[in-house]
Amino acid sequence: MPAPAPGNGPRFDDVLPPLVDHHCHGVLRHEPDAATFASYLTESDRSPAAGTTHFDTQTGFAVRRWCPPLLDLPAHCPPERYLARRRELGPDETRRRLLGATGIGAYLVDTGLPGDLTGPDETAAAGGGTGHEVVRLETLAERTAAAAAEGGGDGGAGADPEEFTDALARAVQEAARTAVAFKTVAAYRHGLALAPEPPAAGAVHTAARAWLAAGAGRLTDPVLLRHLVALAVATGRPLQIHTGFGDPDLRLDHADPALLTDLVRATAGTGTDLVLLHCYPYHRQAAYLASVFPHVYADVGLTLTHTGPRATTVLAEFLELAPFGKLLFSTDAYGLPELYVVGSALFRTALTEVLGGWTASGAWSADDAHRVGALLAAENARRVYGLGAAGRKRERERCPRSR
Amino acid sequence: MPAPAPGNGPRFDDVLPPLVDHHCHGVLRHEPDAATFASYLTESDRSPAAGTTHFDTQTGFAVRRWCPPLLDLPAHCPPERYLARRRELGPDETRRRLLGATGIGAYLVDTGLPGDLTGPDETAAAGGGTGHEVVRLETLAERTAAAAAEGGGDGGAGADPEEFTDALARAVQEAARTAVAFKTVAAYRHGLALAPEPPAAGAVHTAARAWLAAGAGRLTDPVLLRHLVALAVATGRPLQIHTGFGDPDLRLDHADPALLTDLVRATAGTGTDLVLLHCYPYHRQAAYLASVFPHVYADVGLTLTHTGPRATTVLAEFLELAPFGKLLFSTDAYGLPELYVVGSALFRTALTEVLGGWTASGAWSADDAHRVGALLAAENARRVYGLGAAGRKRERERCPRSR
Amino acid sequence: MPAPAPGNGPRFDDVLPPLVDHHCHGVLRHEPDAATFASYLTESDRSPAAGTTHFDTQTGFAVRRWCPPLLDLPAHCPPERYLARRRELGPDETRRRLLGATGIGAYLVDTGLPGDLTGPDETAAAGGGTGHEVVRLETLAERTAAAAAEGGGDGGAGADPEEFTDALARAVQEAARTAVAFKTVAAYRHGLALAPEPPAAGAVHTAARAWLAAGAGRLTDPVLLRHLVALAVATGRPLQIHTGFGDPDLRLDHADPALLTDLVRATAGTGTDLVLLHCYPYHRQAAYLASVFPHVYADVGLTLTHTGPRATTVLAEFLELAPFGKLLFSTDAYGLPELYVVGSALFRTALTEVLGGWTASGAWSADDAHRVGALLAAENARRVYGLGAAGRKRERERCPRSR
Repeated sequence: MPAPAPGNGPRFDDVLPPLVDHHCHGVLRHEPDAATFASYLTESDRSPAAGTTHFDTQTGFAVRRWCPPLLDLPAHCPPERYLARRRELGPDETRRRLLGATGIGAYLVDTGLPGDLTGPDETAAAGGGTGHEVVRLETLAERTAAAAAEGGGDGGAGADPEEFTDALARAVQEAARTAVAFKTVAAYRHGLALAPEPPAAGAVHTAARAWLAAGAGRLTDPVLLRHLVALAVATGRPLQIHTGFGDPDLRLDHADPALLTDLVRATAGTGTDLVLLHCYPYHRQAAYLASVFPHVYADVGLTLTHTGPRATTVLAEFLELAPFGKLLFSTDAYGLPELYVVGSALFRTALTEVLGGWTASGAWSADDAHRVGALLAAENARRVYGLGAAGRKRERERCPRSR
Repeated sequence: MPAPAPGNGPRFDDVLPPLVDHHCHGVLRHEPDAATFASYLTESDRSPAAGTTHFDTQTGFAVRRWCPPLLDLPAHCPPERYLARRRELGPDETRRRLLGATGIGAYLVDTGLPGDLTGPDETAAAGGGTGHEVVRLETLAERTAAAAAEGGGDGGAGADPEEFTDALARAVQEAARTAVAFKTVAAYRHGLALAPEPPAAGAVHTAARAWLAAGAGRLTDPVLLRHLVALAVATGRPLQIHTGFGDPDLRLDHADPALLTDLVRATAGTGTDLVLLHCYPYHRQAAYLASVFPHVYADVGLTLTHTGPRATTVLAEFLELAPFGKLLFSTDAYGLPELYVVGSALFRTALTEVLGGWTASGAWSADDAHRVGALLAAENARRVYGLGAAGRKRERERCPRSR
Repeated sequence: MPAPAPGNGPRFDDVLPPLVDHHCHGVLRHEPDAATFASYLTESDRSPAAGTTHFDTQTGFAVRRWCPPLLDLPAHCPPERYLARRRELGPDETRRRLLGATGIGAYLVDTGLPGDLTGPDETAAAGGGTGHEVVRLETLAERTAAAAAEGGGDGGAGADPEEFTDALARAVQEAARTAVAFKTVAAYRHGLALAPEPPAAGAVHTAARAWLAAGAGRLTDPVLLRHLVALAVATGRPLQIHTGFGDPDLRLDHADPALLTDLVRATAGTGTDLVLLHCYPYHRQAAYLASVFPHVYADVGLTLTHTGPRATTVLAEFLELAPFGKLLFSTDAYGLPELYVVGSALFRTALTEVLGGWTASGAWSADDAHRVGALLAAENARRVYGLGAAGRKRERERCPRSR
């Protein structure tokens, strides 16, 4: 990986443990064409406006900054040249080169997105790390409904609601045995202003009946979304919650993590941790929740990748209120291994600049800065997901950047 | 114009095309007294608190930084001295000196504000640029109602609703023939949480009847506001939408551009572009909308003028999520030619510092920085408003700062 | 007090008047144990998450930066060592050393918080300044109800509503004779979306009857909260309003000061000033209100103390829209004299860096920067609370840092 921009502070790169990317996705197994590649640089699901390109974004510029040197090209070379070289190398070699340069030792992969994507172990293997699965609740429910409908032999009238809810409860318990966490995208499906208490069984059956009868498509019913959250919380596994910006399915003001306050209060006694993902532009709100509720954590996620050289400031904004034991690193990379490179490079650069700057001014001691750097890079995630010291040792051996 | 603060980066000033100020207003034709002058430095419509002055604001300090040297006085001289010199020179010479130093080549003037103000051509002539008109929808409706009432001969009972709506539709179509854009101030009149679909004809007539019967004063009826938006969108001309801060008529939290999401979705297929003005302090939200919806643009407007040396940071915040082909420059200057100077100087300074900093750190290439600088300064606006290459050439010749 | 981080600008420390801390609380009279000490470093009312500590926050790091040298220890020494030294010195000597190093000349103490805390004069005496009282409305109402119930001899059935409201009105008027301001924590009790008009007498009696009958516990009834605000506004004393973040009783999104807009409009003609406290992360919204409504002021309060080295940026964000005559300094210190040290040190550092930076770049003149520094540090508060020139002279003599 290219060196981060020089700062005045210590080079945290040299002392950081292998990163734990606690929220990411698989990458495409096959070579994307130019338009497909560009579509992964934005949260938009639409073509760019006439006269513009998705490469003219902070994400596009960051890819052109960090990735070409890993494919033997100069930084900032034109997109066409980069894509040509990528095709020349092929998807496997590209993935190996890019993921191998991220310094990531553990990949916690949300497997709920569509596409011909690498799975957790496959992703991790390309990068020299270990893979873990994060199970997306809404996808699990949709798959469970599809399986119940197929098995029901009812000629397409949908599954029985009680059988479905039983099967769903079993599926969540089953997943909890192997997955390290659950994730909900209720922000996309309904918004975060959900009633905090678990819905009553009768209400769940009524909602399930209606949804199944309508074909069990994209799950947006708030009763079922709350039921999924309740099932996940009951397992004790950490629950990742999408908050803040994302694709245009989402209404941004309905994804403010402050809207989760009542749910946070209602889950305070359960022993289950909540991890607020991305959060931008409401990351100060997320940091506040993490500061006053012991079971709430926040994540830099998608935010650093999409803000380029501004990642430094955005990380600093997170670190205003977020206790240093409560903020986690992730790339939220999806589809392109380039997004792993960019997410990890921007995180390292931002961390070096922010903590280095505070050390240089005397506000922090160097010892504290190194300790906090390790917390954010890996240790907080290890504690929350119970990844353990054995895994840490293994990753240090496997991850070529670990020292 | 005085040179911007020196930075480490390239001097974009030297290579920028003439600016396109895509949203501004006329300036006072006559010399304002001291209190009137001060009242244009703030969005408040009230006297300052006892013991304070509107000069003690970032706008006031910015005027005192940039403008006195253009009138042969030292920067930061006391307001009284500046105003005395201004009176000495007279309004025409002051306007000529100030507008001539802005580097603006095209002025898109919203003509819907009251006062004895210069029109588009008159404003542009003083600055050596070309003028274009932006038509404010609410003012157009109020004028149409007033004309209908006068013409109706009904003894003051107001115009006929059907005649009024017919006249209004004709007025919008007429305006679209010469104006480069429409503008709505629904944020002031009702807030941005408007139902997204065009209202039915019956509802429009009912609302028009009530408004006309009440004297057709300040238009605040949400049905009529939505009808105006629908009429404007149907013309295909870009629609400028006031969002974010403004005078105290407005409730700030009702002007968050995220509240426009449903309207944005409803207009996505129309071919008409929406330009979100000002946006502060919700500019990150506006940038998000511009990043995921192809027909949405955002503008720095009023925001830079009112934040002084913080304009650099605020511009950088816009450039976190906003695609570089989607952000537009404007001064939103109103009443005082000083606000054109301040708005353009702060934009140039901020652009130099932000893009220069990113180039110096290696995050961006110098070529990209120059290209993006030209997009923000002029090219994005030219594309959105269809100003054309002929206009560009003419402005380069007329605008004394163009090189 | 240790010197702030060196900047390029002038050392405002050397020229600032004694600070007016316009919103603070008493400190513990007795030595806290380690867990109690740590609990005052956070707005959380809960134990830290397993594996984390309240010392690993910006507030914790700031205490370790600024305070150990005042107790003869190196900056950034471990918490245990600091606490041991503190016990060695005892609470009186610790308080004397810490408060004596703050440069604060006037303490406006909200006396409505529980605990064995120093009162206004006692707090001020330890720091060499003068003390003033701010009366918390909700506490006053709860005390009045308790006294009425005791005096009523009704066997615990609660006080008579009319007697209570009469007693409350007298209590507010009585308090206005000696207190410099009132404060409301309606943000914690109901949220800031309160109907703006004073409630009718009948509604107040009905609400009072219900509250008294229920035991007159924690006051959360919106009618009574509005009534308290109306009583306070009628006295003409400035009203401090908690906005923005705080302990988890509060819902952050219900504490956005923009929600006060209707109340602000309704009180615009009363002659009473409103001071918005803390405001974070909605401080840009608060600054906007202060910019357009003459009777609205904003305060940096809790925000600087909790953001450590980010206080510089946060202060700069306040100073985007806030007129320079409208922003006030406070520490919001509570329980620990360390929080007075941190709040004042961060304010001085941030002020030096922000105004010094703007002066160095040429955006501001040095004269203006010094003048604005004095406004923020003391003069704005003196004007709003009518502290007068006599007090200023006395504080300069008593406050050892005054020059």
